[in-house]
Amino acid sequence: MTTIEASSNEFVVNPADIQAAATRIAPHVLRTPSIHSESLSKRLGCQVWFKPENLQHTGAFKTRGAVNAVMSLSEEEASKGVVTHSSGNHAAALARAATIRGIEAHVVMPKNSSRKKIDAVRSFGVEPIFCETSSQARSEMAEKVREKTGAAMVHPINDPRVIAGQGTVASELVAQIDGLDAVLVPVGGGGLISGILMLIKSLHPHIKVYAVEPALADDTARSLKAGHREMPVRYDTIADGLRSEVGVNTFPIIRHFVDDLFLVDEVLIGSAMRTLAEDAHLVAEPSGAVSFAGLISMKQQFAGKTVAAVITGGNMDFGECKLGRNRISS
Amino acid sequence: MTTIEASSNEFVVNPADIQAAATRIAPHVLRTPSIHSESLSKRLGCQVWFKPENLQHTGAFKTRGAVNAVMSLSEEEASKGVVTHSSGNHAAALARAATIRGIEAHVVMPKNSSRKKIDAVRSFGVEPIFCETSSQARSEMAEKVREKTGAAMVHPINDPRVIAGQGTVASELVAQIDGLDAVLVPVGGGGLISGILMLIKSLHPHIKVYAVEPALADDTARSLKAGHREMPVRYDTIADGLRSEVGVNTFPIIRHFVDDLFLVDEVLIGSAMRTLAEDAHLVAEPSGAVSFAGLISMKQQFAGKTVAAVITGGNMDFGECKLGRNRISS
Repeated sequence: MTTIEASSNEFVVNPADIQAAATRIAPHVLRTPSIHSESLSKRLGCQVWFKPENLQHTGAFKTRGAVNAVMSLSEEEASKGVVTHSSGNHAAALARAATIRGIEAHVVMPKNSSRKKIDAVRSFGVEPIFCETSSQARSEMAEKVREKTGAAMVHPINDPRVIAGQGTVASELVAQIDGLDAVLVPVGGGGLISGILMLIKSLHPHIKVYAVEPALADDTARSLKAGHREMPVRYDTIADGLRSEVGVNTFPIIRHFVDDLFLVDEVLIGSAMRTLAEDAHLVAEPSGAVSFAGLISMKQQFAGKTVAAVITGGNMDFGECKLGRNRISS
Repeated sequence: MTTIEASSNEFVVNPADIQAAATRIAPHVLRTPSIHSESLSKRLGCQVWFKPENLQHTGAFKTRGAVNAVMSLSEEEASKGVVTHSSGNHAAALARAATIRGIEAHVVMPKNSSRKKIDAVRSFGVEPIFCETSSQARSEMAEKVREKTGAAMVHPINDPRVIAGQGTVASELVAQIDGLDAVLVPVGGGGLISGILMLIKSLHPHIKVYAVEPALADDTARSLKAGHREMPVRYDTIADGLRSEVGVNTFPIIRHFVDDLFLVDEVLIGSAMRTLAEDAHLVAEPSGAVSFAGLISMKQQFAGKTVAAVITGGNMDFGECKLGRNRISS
């Protein structure tokens, strides 16, 4: 606790924010189970647990942060709606959260967003606002919408209410798994891992927290080495949810608290997805399997330990899959 | 309750057996969650819940019955080991249960069993005894082993301890889902549905229980019409776990209690598997998706209701899948 108290002013969230978020979002998100895999434990030589946020509403942990942000708004703020920009799971999560509160959502999406992600937003009655694909174009369009409508901006990564919401994964993990030694978390923008770090390192500091990042999107690894934020240099990892730069509000938390960061290559991410499907019977999108890829690659380090890998999402395109092609009609 | 008391002598299990099984197996099986799918609820017009027994140890509900049978043995019985015949999930489940108790398991498998199922048995240190593929050859070989070893026979379907173990799915369902209106259960040999029926129809008779069966393996449907057991006439449904004949001990329970039986075709089973993967992010083997296929086909009947589909298992061969080919080494 002293660590936190000494440094709490440096960071945009504190453990109390996460505990408040847990109460606030409880009626609207799934308390996902923690699932022990006996077969993978035997094969990897440690007690393997999964936190399957692919089973979460909208298929990803992003629902937690979005609901916390929307439910934190005052009546006056809420009356003007919310706005964000996202090509991924945050877009649908915010659309859903706004629907629950009965307010308008303005969701700016790059025009090359996947059909599945666009459909997910539309399933909540929200028509995306399309923009050019650059990071700058997205921000500018979202800012334009904000100025015009007065809507509250809910940044997918840096919003403190979003970070606090994502951190609720950690309070469930520690409640669900006895003797938890370590947690592995994918890092993209860092919203999830910074929330998890803030809760665990303040209340359960004996538990290790490791970031796992695709080697092809290693901006956080380079940032940690440099001591300041470094930008991505390529955007082609299969783990599309982890291509974004580490956030201005999340990097300080990661830098201060994280125990280590593991890089994983693309082949290993694919293997991890396959093993999750074949042995744990969970469908993870590439980004969602990155934490487990890190566990596979570092299994010696975790020998005999109780380890949880957060499976962050499951929204992937099955277009080429050979399974039955006739989907249920809506 | 009166229904049960009046007829309890007809059946090989009663609700107290299932409640005792729940206590007996608790240390050795997962209490799987019940998962609500918001997106599929919206699309199907009813509240859709899954009981994902594909997340169970050994990847299928069969672990429940096998553990209950093995843990029910007296010390003297146990000392001589257990024997069964199975080409499927019961084989690995019994091997695992015997390992937990520290006794020998003799598992007779037809020589054409899938590599994955054989490997699963071997992963518990049990070498299968291979036999010819006919139903008769399996029984005869198992009987021969029983005579030679004195091992206790644990039939995959008709053993009352197995039926009671499978029935524990029902006690969890009613505890986990408020306002449950109906449960859909795949039927092959009928061990699972007869356990579920016995618990629900005695303690929660307002909840409907429906059997779902592949149209290509419709022996239970024909048996219900005929009023006596009819045999399968073909063995080629993709749902390989449901090819076996309805059991001599399970059919009377099904006939007495089941609310209805739905037949589903092969295309719908494939669609259900795909939808489970794409939208619920669960990997179901074909047999495990049959209950959800029934829900899709009968969605009008369930409009506005709270319905649970038991996803019975997830052990399928990913040989042709395009995902990463490098599996983790053991």
